[in-house]
Amino acid sequence: MQKNITLAMGNGGEENNKLITDIFYKAFKNEILERSEDAAVLGFGNEKIAMSTDSFTVSPIFFSGSDIGKLSICGTCNDLAMMGAKPKYLTVGIILEEGFSIKDLQKIVRSMKKELEINGAIVVSGDTKVMPKGTLDKIIINTTGVGEILYDGISSNSITEEDTIIVSRDIGCHGATIFASREGIELESELKSDCTSLFPIVKKLIDGGVKITALRDATRGGVAAVLNEWAKQSDICIEVDEDSIPVSQEVYGMCEMLGFEATALANEGTFCLSIKKDDEKKALEILKEFNPHATTIAKVTSSHKQKVILNSSYGTQRFLDTPSGELLPRIC
Amino acid sequence: MQKNITLAMGNGGEENNKLITDIFYKAFKNEILERSEDAAVLGFGNEKIAMSTDSFTVSPIFFSGSDIGKLSICGTCNDLAMMGAKPKYLTVGIILEEGFSIKDLQKIVRSMKKELEINGAIVVSGDTKVMPKGTLDKIIINTTGVGEILYDGISSNSITEEDTIIVSRDIGCHGATIFASREGIELESELKSDCTSLFPIVKKLIDGGVKITALRDATRGGVAAVLNEWAKQSDICIEVDEDSIPVSQEVYGMCEMLGFEATALANEGTFCLSIKKDDEKKALEILKEFNPHATTIAKVTSSHKQKVILNSSYGTQRFLDTPSGELLPRIC
Repeated sequence: MQKNITLAMGNGGEENNKLITDIFYKAFKNEILERSEDAAVLGFGNEKIAMSTDSFTVSPIFFSGSDIGKLSICGTCNDLAMMGAKPKYLTVGIILEEGFSIKDLQKIVRSMKKELEINGAIVVSGDTKVMPKGTLDKIIINTTGVGEILYDGISSNSITEEDTIIVSRDIGCHGATIFASREGIELESELKSDCTSLFPIVKKLIDGGVKITALRDATRGGVAAVLNEWAKQSDICIEVDEDSIPVSQEVYGMCEMLGFEATALANEGTFCLSIKKDDEKKALEILKEFNPHATTIAKVTSSHKQKVILNSSYGTQRFLDTPSGELLPRIC
Repeated sequence: MQKNITLAMGNGGEENNKLITDIFYKAFKNEILERSEDAAVLGFGNEKIAMSTDSFTVSPIFFSGSDIGKLSICGTCNDLAMMGAKPKYLTVGIILEEGFSIKDLQKIVRSMKKELEINGAIVVSGDTKVMPKGTLDKIIINTTGVGEILYDGISSNSITEEDTIIVSRDIGCHGATIFASREGIELESELKSDCTSLFPIVKKLIDGGVKITALRDATRGGVAAVLNEWAKQSDICIEVDEDSIPVSQEVYGMCEMLGFEATALANEGTFCLSIKKDDEKKALEILKEFNPHATTIAKVTSSHKQKVILNSSYGTQRFLDTPSGELLPRIC
């Protein structure tokens, strides 16, 4: 273990996983935490609830398609939705730098309010701290949510060859947008963050009777991180058809220009689904109501267990690994 | 409303209240939030649970008697305990500055683990972010907890003249300790933070059959902020006997030297109790098992509604107001 925290330890990839395992899981070890995925599932008397936390440090705080306020509600509500839960009660912890603009704060809070309504969730407790100028860059928001589980048993440990793997829309928009706006790249394009609340989509899938094995929003570490985690946790091989991965022209252009892989770019409103093959058509129909680019991207095999394989149209194969190294700090 | 965030807006006093009311309560308005005190009380099916959040920004992160890790668990667990709830499940959001010492992080996490055990609580979900060097001073921790309500109906709106007001120990130690360590004041004394978990004390009070009206830990804004909030919310006058307020020699010395009022200093393991007069003796017996300085400090009258009056031993009277202005930033 290194002596000091590196940016890579917060990137959602390999180093991040190692920090969490070596330091936090080791100290806080318990059954619920070990089983915890996007959200933990807790027993309270006869009730089963989901609970999840996330801190938002994104820079810039306003960006094409969204802002830190919307992001802070989507992030936590999406984690609950990914466990088949309806976001219900949220807490909000805001930490502000002295001198922060109150007008900007109001704008952020308005975004939060709007997104809460989309989720049908309310803020029940809050906390505000102010740090002296120069000790924090602008604003950090923590949201923690609890939700009511509508669909029980979602788990990344249960994916089998009976499943098919779908992505809900074209990938990488959030990562590409943040990168572009931070670097001052002027894009004469439609590129904007995918940041959105996923509960309405999940609700439709559940109501539509889709048999869901696992759901995961592809945030830090992107689709590559999700698929690798699933391959490991379910002890399966995931074979991705490279050409099937939906990537917009804008994101593709950014990746070409900067040497990124779209599969490693963060998303904030794009999720992977592992569902029973029988329901593929039904699921895609529902997903396409929200985004026409929803598509099947992978199948489950047993060829290289715990690995993700990328099959190109030229017939070549390579492993798609969990991203590592310094990706983009403060992406979310 | 001012144009920019000031340090005073995070101090737990008047300006902090105004920010919360004008910006957050206005946007997030709902019945639960309005009724919410140290923690919110939520319904989940047939279960009633308490939920609370807090972010910790204390500087320095290690100080006499405690550290940011212990503080982060005590803070949220105490908020739950103050609503008569047993802390059960916690989430932890940690934001680190690039370059932060992993040895220090491990020390902080060990403190957290120890304090979780005292509360009988577990961490069920976590989140780690890393911010580039210079954009955050060291570390911020957010903890959010849910708890099982053991004693129903605790509320700052219900205090009457049937009640007596007690403080659980001598006040101001946390504030004085942080101030001293930050300013490099060498104290050849026993001064250390009062930071401690209050659930074990609350549990004994409940088990002992004490009829509790309200409980509140006197954190930012100190005892003065708590009593003023109670006076307003219950529409009563609280008359404090100045000489009865327990203040240690060390804290008293710091206050004299620096012109502070001990009643405005933050505490992290000291709470005010409003209980039925009949139970005063029983409550004090239990409290004194934990700290010999527990004592009655005030009575409830109707002389100046919504005000706190300080009666001195010379027979003079003055109002004790909610603290305002820049107290000590990053106290918790």
